[in-house]
Amino acid sequence: MLDNIRIVLVAPRGSGNIGSVARAMKNMGLNDLAIVGHGRTQSFSARAMAAHAREILKDSRRFTTLREAVADCGLVVGTTCRGGLYRDHSRSPRVTAPEIVAAARSGKCALVFGPEDHGLDNEELKHCQALITIPTDPGYPSLNLAQAVTICLYEIFLSTLEKVPAEAIERAPAESVERLFDKMKHSLLEIGYLDSQNPDHILFAFRRIFGRAGLEEKDVRILTGLFRQIEWYANEGWKVIEEKKRKGLKIR
Amino acid sequence: MLDNIRIVLVAPRGSGNIGSVARAMKNMGLNDLAIVGHGRTQSFSARAMAAHAREILKDSRRFTTLREAVADCGLVVGTTCRGGLYRDHSRSPRVTAPEIVAAARSGKCALVFGPEDHGLDNEELKHCQALITIPTDPGYPSLNLAQAVTICLYEIFLSTLEKVPAEAIERAPAESVERLFDKMKHSLLEIGYLDSQNPDHILFAFRRIFGRAGLEEKDVRILTGLFRQIEWYANEGWKVIEEKKRKGLKIR
Repeated sequence: MLDNIRIVLVAPRGSGNIGSVARAMKNMGLNDLAIVGHGRTQSFSARAMAAHAREILKDSRRFTTLREAVADCGLVVGTTCRGGLYRDHSRSPRVTAPEIVAAARSGKCALVFGPEDHGLDNEELKHCQALITIPTDPGYPSLNLAQAVTICLYEIFLSTLEKVPAEAIERAPAESVERLFDKMKHSLLEIGYLDSQNPDHILFAFRRIFGRAGLEEKDVRILTGLFRQIEWYANEGWKVIEEKKRKGLKIR
Repeated sequence: MLDNIRIVLVAPRGSGNIGSVARAMKNMGLNDLAIVGHGRTQSFSARAMAAHAREILKDSRRFTTLREAVADCGLVVGTTCRGGLYRDHSRSPRVTAPEIVAAARSGKCALVFGPEDHGLDNEELKHCQALITIPTDPGYPSLNLAQAVTICLYEIFLSTLEKVPAEAIERAPAESVERLFDKMKHSLLEIGYLDSQNPDHILFAFRRIFGRAGLEEKDVRILTGLFRQIEWYANEGWKVIEEKKRKGLKIR
């Protein structure tokens, strides 16, 4: 079940950090490492820091975008050390780890870490259905990347030792959910609900709600149907109105 | 009280590790670092890995023996990743951290880590009144030094908090949510998304999703806004279409 948990490093700067992450993964029983963008997994310092976990570096996969890296994952959890807009629903690793373990019992999960210097940006956070912030001294909340990974994996590993009930729902793959959001954005722009200058702002609220809920495939179908109908109405609804007028029915 | 907890590194090999330890200490609110024997606290890599915790390196103290390094400490806790003779009373960081914190309320404590390659030897263990072993995958129990320190300090830091921040959301009152569902039903009937014979069937799916997520007041406001806009469009959208037709704009 730990095999189902992928560590995704977005644009890691230090290759020594990548090696340290690989080591922590092996210490805690994980093996699926993905790199988004650059990140030298075979440098001297990556291999040195990985110690006996070099096969994780060798087997790691590279993706161009975060969306691709998590496409097959039902649960995508981001990490942030900052609060602020789009980040206020963040929870601790201890609270989140059992949920990750429960989700990993039925499908792939991803735990996503941003670049060392500034972490995940808001565009990347869009893909995350839940957020983790590691509790720290407020005077210096920025953890080293590999140390942040270590703490999260430690909590996940401990959660596997406890008897946890399997998650009640089976989450749809991230890519299905992204297509739903594409559809949603398009239809809600058509009816003028979203600000065309910044449609993602309000969509973030929906991402947060649906991320918290977790969407199953059937939920995705129902919601897609709703937005398809909205889009239909936005384009064809006038015909309904004209038909009503023709029949002399009341229009508000 | 965290000022009373000293991290003691016995003969650390990698100066980068020393810097990483300093950073983890500052992240978790500690500042008292002691080195037994060699260990270059001012090397380039020590300072680089310490990032904003360089003052901990600068203020660190060097001792010839472990005995001297812990001389003023009421509680001395060692760390080991191995079992065996003198080591079978080892416990997890989670169990031990509250005891360290309790002891630190009334005096100095030390948390002792051995060299990267073989850990604390039995002579050094003699000075330790308690032992910590970090739970890991049995296939690779040897953690990087700085990552082991990070996990222990994370547990200690959490122990200082009254309780783990379990940030629950603040759910909106049921009546707000019911009004949302009323609005939703009305608007989705207007655009023909719900079956007028049995509108509640599909609404149940939404109740399930939103129930799982839990809706805060701000979520209710956002969703109400969406359904209000759908309803507006269902009734007034034809005017938008007629305006488009009047201006000779394309209608799908």
